[in-house]
Amino acid sequence: MSLPVSSETFRNAMSRLGAAVSIVTTDGEAGRHGLTASAVCSVTDSPATILVCINRQSSAHRAIVANGVLCINVLTPGHRELASRFGRSGVSPEEKYGDCAWSALSTGSPVLEGACVSLDCSVSEVRAVGTHSVFFCRVEAIASALEPEGLVYFDRDFHPLRKTQLPAPERAA
Amino acid sequence: MSLPVSSETFRNAMSRLGAAVSIVTTDGEAGRHGLTASAVCSVTDSPATILVCINRQSSAHRAIVANGVLCINVLTPGHRELASRFGRSGVSPEEKYGDCAWSALSTGSPVLEGACVSLDCSVSEVRAVGTHSVFFCRVEAIASALEPEGLVYFDRDFHPLRKTQLPAPERAA
Repeated sequence: MSLPVSSETFRNAMSRLGAAVSIVTTDGEAGRHGLTASAVCSVTDSPATILVCINRQSSAHRAIVANGVLCINVLTPGHRELASRFGRSGVSPEEKYGDCAWSALSTGSPVLEGACVSLDCSVSEVRAVGTHSVFFCRVEAIASALEPEGLVYFDRDFHPLRKTQLPAPERAA
Repeated sequence: MSLPVSSETFRNAMSRLGAAVSIVTTDGEAGRHGLTASAVCSVTDSPATILVCINRQSSAHRAIVANGVLCINVLTPGHRELASRFGRSGVSPEEKYGDCAWSALSTGSPVLEGACVSLDCSVSEVRAVGTHSVFFCRVEAIASALEPEGLVYFDRDFHPLRKTQLPAPERAA
């Protein structure tokens, strides 16, 4: 007896599903592209597989399909501005990649120096669902920062994730 | 030139991908089952679709496939004990569901009273990848708590998500 769930109702509900913020990059014959994504999800550890859902209208979508590779760079609290820049439409790849340090691991996709963790992947399958494609990705190589610090998007705002703060020890009188 | 990514390396990397903690429930001809999941991901808002990845060895997996419905209950900071209980193996559904208030929306899957948001779904497709199944779920009905407060798992620990704390106003002298 329920009405269909509208796009607005669904998006409001999804604002309550906290999600890590990542920058998904690609490079290859179709060029260097990238976008901010929060629909990233672990699938299985054997074989090491992760998925990411990307709107087919985004300029990076076509490049990822053509290049067949991508890197999921999981962001830290210091990356808010970068997340906003890669999330805006109408920003050229040159502007997006401009002032950060990038390297590469196995596939040639840009690896963000200082990311919490970077997962360098080859795309194993693409599945269309409504407006989006689900990219199933085989993880080829991993780079991790020394200290795990994360950035999640929840309730339409960024939230930092750090080691649980322990109470400060009491001082002797 | 990179070595294959081992299960351990992959799991260590995944501990750095912060993820909302949910209890996935089901009920129907195959009975009432449930488990804790953090591999939940928004797919598209038209049609309203979400996915969840579940290990095929889990006792709830078979029930979800047979019932064809599930509810994703996104947890709040007060639900840590519940998350641990639904995450342990060898705990009967009766013990898991014991002392909480549950209701139902459209599909009959248990809806947790006080969840941050509950997404009541019919399973539209099941896809096997390695050890896990990816359940693509059409969202049939949604229930939301008044205040958005979330719970994420990151760096092998729970972290609460609340409205960004604004600095307290200064008192007049």
